[in-house]
Amino acid sequence: MEHLFASTYGYFRADGREYVITTPFTPRPWGNVISNGDYAMMVSQTGSGYSWRNNAGQNRITRSFQDLIQDNWGKYLYLRDLDSGQYWAATYKPTCHQYDHYQVRHGLGYSSFEQIVQGIHSILTVFVAPDDPVEIFQLTLTNQSDRQRRLDITSYVEWLLGFAPDEHREFHKLFIETTPEPEFHALLARKYLWGFADELGRHNNIDWPYVAFMAVSEPLKSFDGDKESFIGLYSSLEHPQAMQQPTLAGRSGRFGDAIAALQVEITLAPGERRTVVFTLGAALQGSEDPLALIQRYTSVTASDQTLQAVHAFWSRLVDAEHVETPDPALNLMTNYWLKYQAISGRLWGKSAFYQVSAGYGFRDQLQDCQIFLVCDPALAKRQILLHAAQQFVEGDVLHWWFSIRGGGPRTNCSDDLLWLPFVVDSYLQETGDVAILDEMVPYLNGPAEPLYLHCKRAIERAFSRFSPRGIPLMGDHDWNDGLNAVGTQLRGESFWVAEFLYTILERWIPLAQQRSDEAFAERCTAVRTTLRWAMNRYGWDGEWFLQATTDAGLPLGSQQNEEGRIFLMPNIWAVISGITDQQRAWQAMQAVSRYLLCDYGTLLNYPAFTRPRSDIGYVTRYAPGLRENGGVYTHAATWSVWAYALLGDVDHAYEAYRRICPPNRSADIERYKAEPYVTPGNIDGPQSPYFGRGGWTWYTGSAQWLHRVATHWILGIRPQIEGLLIDPLIPATWERFTVRRTFRGAIYEIEVLNPNHVNRGVISLEVDGQPLAGTVIPAFNDGQTHSVRVVLG
Amino acid sequence: MEHLFASTYGYFRADGREYVITTPFTPRPWGNVISNGDYAMMVSQTGSGYSWRNNAGQNRITRSFQDLIQDNWGKYLYLRDLDSGQYWAATYKPTCHQYDHYQVRHGLGYSSFEQIVQGIHSILTVFVAPDDPVEIFQLTLTNQSDRQRRLDITSYVEWLLGFAPDEHREFHKLFIETTPEPEFHALLARKYLWGFADELGRHNNIDWPYVAFMAVSEPLKSFDGDKESFIGLYSSLEHPQAMQQPTLAGRSGRFGDAIAALQVEITLAPGERRTVVFTLGAALQGSEDPLALIQRYTSVTASDQTLQAVHAFWSRLVDAEHVETPDPALNLMTNYWLKYQAISGRLWGKSAFYQVSAGYGFRDQLQDCQIFLVCDPALAKRQILLHAAQQFVEGDVLHWWFSIRGGGPRTNCSDDLLWLPFVVDSYLQETGDVAILDEMVPYLNGPAEPLYLHCKRAIERAFSRFSPRGIPLMGDHDWNDGLNAVGTQLRGESFWVAEFLYTILERWIPLAQQRSDEAFAERCTAVRTTLRWAMNRYGWDGEWFLQATTDAGLPLGSQQNEEGRIFLMPNIWAVISGITDQQRAWQAMQAVSRYLLCDYGTLLNYPAFTRPRSDIGYVTRYAPGLRENGGVYTHAATWSVWAYALLGDVDHAYEAYRRICPPNRSADIERYKAEPYVTPGNIDGPQSPYFGRGGWTWYTGSAQWLHRVATHWILGIRPQIEGLLIDPLIPATWERFTVRRTFRGAIYEIEVLNPNHVNRGVISLEVDGQPLAGTVIPAFNDGQTHSVRVVLG
Repeated sequence: MEHLFASTYGYFRADGREYVITTPFTPRPWGNVISNGDYAMMVSQTGSGYSWRNNAGQNRITRSFQDLIQDNWGKYLYLRDLDSGQYWAATYKPTCHQYDHYQVRHGLGYSSFEQIVQGIHSILTVFVAPDDPVEIFQLTLTNQSDRQRRLDITSYVEWLLGFAPDEHREFHKLFIETTPEPEFHALLARKYLWGFADELGRHNNIDWPYVAFMAVSEPLKSFDGDKESFIGLYSSLEHPQAMQQPTLAGRSGRFGDAIAALQVEITLAPGERRTVVFTLGAALQGSEDPLALIQRYTSVTASDQTLQAVHAFWSRLVDAEHVETPDPALNLMTNYWLKYQAISGRLWGKSAFYQVSAGYGFRDQLQDCQIFLVCDPALAKRQILLHAAQQFVEGDVLHWWFSIRGGGPRTNCSDDLLWLPFVVDSYLQETGDVAILDEMVPYLNGPAEPLYLHCKRAIERAFSRFSPRGIPLMGDHDWNDGLNAVGTQLRGESFWVAEFLYTILERWIPLAQQRSDEAFAERCTAVRTTLRWAMNRYGWDGEWFLQATTDAGLPLGSQQNEEGRIFLMPNIWAVISGITDQQRAWQAMQAVSRYLLCDYGTLLNYPAFTRPRSDIGYVTRYAPGLRENGGVYTHAATWSVWAYALLGDVDHAYEAYRRICPPNRSADIERYKAEPYVTPGNIDGPQSPYFGRGGWTWYTGSAQWLHRVATHWILGIRPQIEGLLIDPLIPATWERFTVRRTFRGAIYEIEVLNPNHVNRGVISLEVDGQPLAGTVIPAFNDGQTHSVRVVLG
Repeated sequence: MEHLFASTYGYFRADGREYVITTPFTPRPWGNVISNGDYAMMVSQTGSGYSWRNNAGQNRITRSFQDLIQDNWGKYLYLRDLDSGQYWAATYKPTCHQYDHYQVRHGLGYSSFEQIVQGIHSILTVFVAPDDPVEIFQLTLTNQSDRQRRLDITSYVEWLLGFAPDEHREFHKLFIETTPEPEFHALLARKYLWGFADELGRHNNIDWPYVAFMAVSEPLKSFDGDKESFIGLYSSLEHPQAMQQPTLAGRSGRFGDAIAALQVEITLAPGERRTVVFTLGAALQGSEDPLALIQRYTSVTASDQTLQAVHAFWSRLVDAEHVETPDPALNLMTNYWLKYQAISGRLWGKSAFYQVSAGYGFRDQLQDCQIFLVCDPALAKRQILLHAAQQFVEGDVLHWWFSIRGGGPRTNCSDDLLWLPFVVDSYLQETGDVAILDEMVPYLNGPAEPLYLHCKRAIERAFSRFSPRGIPLMGDHDWNDGLNAVGTQLRGESFWVAEFLYTILERWIPLAQQRSDEAFAERCTAVRTTLRWAMNRYGWDGEWFLQATTDAGLPLGSQQNEEGRIFLMPNIWAVISGITDQQRAWQAMQAVSRYLLCDYGTLLNYPAFTRPRSDIGYVTRYAPGLRENGGVYTHAATWSVWAYALLGDVDHAYEAYRRICPPNRSADIERYKAEPYVTPGNIDGPQSPYFGRGGWTWYTGSAQWLHRVATHWILGIRPQIEGLLIDPLIPATWERFTVRRTFRGAIYEIEVLNPNHVNRGVISLEVDGQPLAGTVIPAFNDGQTHSVRVVLG
């Protein structure tokens, strides 16, 4: 077996869809994880995984904050030898047992835990059904000893049935009811209280609208629905009282601390193998039948079929695009893991080890949904329309909202609303589907209008928040949430918002013209002119661009500053937006290369703040080098690749990419301390003693963008209204790469040859054997496969 | 040693100030406690104990929600034998070690953990300094083996430094900094983020304003400030990595998961005894010096002195009143534990095992402060004025508020505001200090006015919320928070609020007249007349009084109801308020006796709701028999004693008291499952399979009231404006009881004799040897002790 990337902890399997770990734990950067963490949790947190309910409007499995089934994140299966009385678990936690072999494989939509303990080989494979809210635990045991073994298997989960984390379990558990269904080998759970207000705004007055269940494929030996009798007064999950007793206590009802513990017994002859299946799910009352779900999934055959369906499900999403380049890390991440992370972690799971999201962020999942553009643009469209519906007629938006029942904060954030026209433009470039602009979408406080008007209202709202100098106001903050004190009095300015708006206007002026909205097009043109002038007049600090001015008029990201002298965002977006001339663009990016591009990616600012500044905001309160305070904030670091590429600076573009591409950190995993197959939200900067340490993996908007900068700006395959542009910017050492991807209803098999070892420059382009002038391949829309041969030189 | 009450778990020491437990755990009713719980937590939760900061305006030690030092509630001391490498802890958790002896003593303001493990006898005594924000851990070790022992002692706490519970540790820990101070054998901790908004309303933009510390009396062998290195990636607090390594890792700074682990080493010759002192505290930046606090308290001498000061501190508060009756449970609770619970748990600690309070409840601590009336009325006065300052000029109040920085919800609760005039009246009865009515107190939205006008505005606000039938509206809810859907549309009525208002008006009419506020007195009189008529016209259900009508006009607490047919509150308050005639009063209380007075106290309603009713509220969502849904809600159950006593129904009064007096549950502790020395918030009713199980101990307003009904309505010693009324209502079997208490600056030593074994009726009364006509002893105000001899007959 080929190990593409191997580290102390594990390696990728050759096809890149599995990461194999050979110790009980992957590295986790911060300590909380240690005491709570276990693999079962990681699986469920990170697979398509933990995900429980069909999310309204999504029709996909998702775990959502409002609707979590479990309180304790561990889902455990205890194994007990009934002759010796010794017990262990199918995962390392909670029993922390001795083992002869231990290996975990994380794949797309599943994880498998394999071990040999006391002569019993076990493989636990965990996954969620693609089309129903059911998690499946498939446990296969093989007796490798030379004597018959009598074992029992005991599941353990704690019912939560509501908001997570539950900050007052003692109260909420009073409303849960568990009911055994012995005929179905199951325990059901309901909750008579849900944290949302009812129609009259009264809290604590509605049911949790699901029926949760745990079931097992074998007849029950015994069960327990109460934590107290399971653990015992004097003990813990590491050695629960239940493992000292012949059977479980059989408690259920409304008066305990609700769990689901199901116990089954099996006997294994020497060499014999048996599979037992546990299921965990939640059925919407009135439209789903928990018992039918149990029957549908709780068998060996059904679980085998469902695992195959999981593979097919993810294959459809990831295999619509495939790249092969000389860079195996780029291939691995682009083909599988970034898509998987963006879709399962961000768009559907909405949570990770370090963060449980309360819903959709307006900017966040809007950017993320660009990951669907190649494989299923309809899903991107649905997400766009969903976000548009979170807008007010005044143009501003809910900064985030609960994805189940709606509701969220209306703030003075200065950029969230602008991501709507930005992402609509991306969608148009990929699909050419201008009909989306006529989709009627309601406002939160007004009747439906075409999506075009939603975007226009967002832009016009941004127009209403300018400083007298012609720079957009910072408001409560811009993309950098931690700048939350810079401009709350509506005097401080954001130079980055100037650039971002400038970028969007460039794209929206032609759209307005196409719709004969001349007045708006002219207004946008005028604003664009002002922005360019004002930005270069007031935003230039001499060697780079300023980030902001504060309400008091002080500069941020200036040579005048001792800390926070230079910020990444205004300098890379100066290039991305084209708001400045080539000379300043180069100068700004030279400063980025000099001060911000460090060994582990591009820093968000430098030097970090070492002292809190109450006129800037909480970014200054982080330890210096952490997250937005002088760390590599991965989301923004991906954009530095874009900016370097736009300048044609291939070396820096590729370095800025390579240094944050996770598999490249496999070799120094003890420093990196994060999973090498997903992007982290941040990487410690040079002022941290843990320089290079990855933090907050999975739940980060960087996954989609790292995918996008690789395909669009390194491989240079960029959808445009007119067709598919081919403009690679690659290391000169590359001989060749291929990209297979769908584009507007056809498949493009693109081969790019680089015989002269250049970085850039298409000298010939053939489609289906015919030469094509220019670098834009037309949209064929014919359902066929087209071969594209490109030669650089 | 005499054991007043012994149970499976422990017994009281003869003087009643200690409860001794002989297993590692006291019983805990609900399961969550199991996995989180340990004795260290219990101590600190329940002593004067956990309590960290001088609370603004209180100048007392208190633990407050906004200001908690620790995240993990455990505070552990590991003991390790350096020759054998074996380790255990000074408490049973987290190591769950084998022991030869284990005993815990909970006293007023301290707890002691005594054990013998591997030949080492240890006593850990934990307490908080009376005058500084310092918790002290005094550990005395004795080598009972016959060889020299080398040991090290390692502390472990997790820094939180902010709101508890912390629902997002991964974020908040990024703002904590730890700094070793080896010269002081200490580790300091600061946090650069606090959950409160700054002056401009910006969140996440201020420092936590304290410096926390942990220190030890011996020189440091090593230390660690990081959870990851202490526990290790693969382990837990039960067997941390630190115990496998010769010294601690020595990490500190801003980049870990902050803890305080201090390690010291000692050598003990056979028979040798040594004491080591750890301290934990938090100094307010700018006004307190953490190093000075460390030096002041971190020594054996200082800790001994401080423990003596703790004893003296609590003695002053509890010994100002002492009763001796033939009922040892009544004596124990009245003399010590109810005072201690009300003051330490409710007024200062504001938290318990089951609930961490966010501040002061308007009604809650206002009632609780009556516990100060005998021992220190000035503290009651301060609390009253504090609450009055949480009122709006419109008369309504913050339902609760953060006790450190203020702020809380303004609701349509119908009774909270009325507790101000109610408790002011209690204060006046005890002290005669009518000058309090002239205290100038500001409103939240208006300038200061005399307290009298605050009370008047509360009453007038209540006047503005009546139904057309002359009954007060329920609003968002009344005393019973769970009735939170009955009247939110301002149509539903609360008959209990009618009675409560009637009670208050009786007392405030003469006060208004004394202040020549004739118009108000007349208005009150008129309202009182209406209330009486309307209550008896619309509130009487035939055999008892209704609780409420809903917005839809449906009755609650009526024979028409299948569930919730009868409620306790309107029936006992019909008697307490005097709103009805004697016949209906008796009839209502007969219904209480028949349907509500169960083996374990008086139920709040019956039958319990078994199905959620969205037009009533979350009370119907609890399991039937739990808490406000058909359980004994202890706060209200104390008032049933008052009502029976007012009727002269001594048997029921005494039974209603006896059944909820906690030590009486010692014998059936396996059913009760709660500490037998504090009141629980509730006791399961007969519809629960755990009928008789106590729940949510410590943080309950029932403590103060159980004290009050015993002294005022059973012993019958009731302060009144004119003097001290003596009107006992006692079991006929009692021969005699004594009460020593302060009253308006004098000490009254009261002996009540009952030679004829009656229940009630004073036939003679002598003061200082002189007969006195009537039953009211005048206020002497002379600082002297007066002996009072009372004969019943």
